[in-house]
Amino acid sequence: MAYELHYWPMIQGRGEFVRLALEDAGADYVDVARQDDESGGIEPMLGRLSDPANARPPFAPPFLRDGDVVVAQTAAILLYLGPRLGLVGASERDRIWTHQLQLTIADAVDEAHDTHHPVGVGLYYAEQKPEALRRAKGFREERIPKFLRYFERVLAANDGGRLVGSDLSYADLSLFQLVEGLRYAFPKAAGAALRDTPKVVRLHEAVAERPRIAAYLASERRIPFNEDGIFRRYPELDA
Amino acid sequence: MAYELHYWPMIQGRGEFVRLALEDAGADYVDVARQDDESGGIEPMLGRLSDPANARPPFAPPFLRDGDVVVAQTAAILLYLGPRLGLVGASERDRIWTHQLQLTIADAVDEAHDTHHPVGVGLYYAEQKPEALRRAKGFREERIPKFLRYFERVLAANDGGRLVGSDLSYADLSLFQLVEGLRYAFPKAAGAALRDTPKVVRLHEAVAERPRIAAYLASERRIPFNEDGIFRRYPELDA
Repeated sequence: MAYELHYWPMIQGRGEFVRLALEDAGADYVDVARQDDESGGIEPMLGRLSDPANARPPFAPPFLRDGDVVVAQTAAILLYLGPRLGLVGASERDRIWTHQLQLTIADAVDEAHDTHHPVGVGLYYAEQKPEALRRAKGFREERIPKFLRYFERVLAANDGGRLVGSDLSYADLSLFQLVEGLRYAFPKAAGAALRDTPKVVRLHEAVAERPRIAAYLASERRIPFNEDGIFRRYPELDA
Repeated sequence: MAYELHYWPMIQGRGEFVRLALEDAGADYVDVARQDDESGGIEPMLGRLSDPANARPPFAPPFLRDGDVVVAQTAAILLYLGPRLGLVGASERDRIWTHQLQLTIADAVDEAHDTHHPVGVGLYYAEQKPEALRRAKGFREERIPKFLRYFERVLAANDGGRLVGSDLSYADLSLFQLVEGLRYAFPKAAGAALRDTPKVVRLHEAVAERPRIAAYLASERRIPFNEDGIFRRYPELDA
């Protein structure tokens, strides 16, 4: 039975980390909210979020349905999918380390989000622009370089050009997506930081060249970045 | 061999979620930075963070050393410790669900932190007070009730007074700590929200009464909340 991904249909957002894993593995999955037939749309997602009969409800999208298992929280979804999709090592040690890296990528993603929403998710960007200008400065000048240098260090300590061992893991795919997002939202700041992290750049290129990922990126399944997602191009925040 | 916890010695912070699991299980552990002999202090922690020979370095504290395994990221540490300390169910399904809850608690903790640091970790609270006042409003009015009601719903759907199954898990301990922190930092707002979530309150009480937890909370090992940690009592943010 196909995996069901439930996520907002108009943005890459956090769902994209799951989409990349499913796509790279060639997994059979349905991006439910993006289906335009009767079974699609966001109603199934919203229904499952609010269904009182659901004893293990997601707090928020994205969530994955695999038969009668429902898993939410991006990193937990990847923890679940990793072994099933061949996107994590076999040992507990490799699995915990891969997950640790994923959680650090998630922290970077959260901070990227908060550059345009420093005051809160309940307000529009236009309502928190002065605060966003201040928050983005620290993110550009300190946090982007710190995160990228950390992953550069991890890659430098590992021979295979991958974050963990010699095989691709979901953390590699997620680091690819982090670089994609930073380059979109902060082209100047990310470009400058990436000049100091050539191994991160090479990993990004290697992921982009994987046949299934290349096909996915060229397809309509890949939603373009936009200003409703996590990574938003507001030039004033990259000044 | 004793577990080694490496974390900032003057705050509960994220390390407290690990301390509570170790304490409840009666595990043999050393809170390294809080030892005042030659083997203690923060130097071992800082050394391990920056040691170029460490191929799998933590991004930040807390981290746990178990022999030659080092695990960072609070949720990943609990994922690792859960089965070892008997603080998670045996099935993969229960483990993923427990982890998913932990990640949602971690999101709430991050948001609590950002009420006093909405602009960035590189600045003092006094440098971002107007922004903090705005951010705290949304956290008090929308986010605290939303998170607590979510956990109330999870508890209501499960008979045993626990988040997962009938046995205590690390997520229960972490929810206890979230309630502790919210009550400290936002006594008025948390008090109001908790009046609507009696099952969360009862779980908090049940955890506090566990003999090892009660002994821990009464000991000097429990660092009092203070205004260097994640949960800070700034009355103006709870107005």
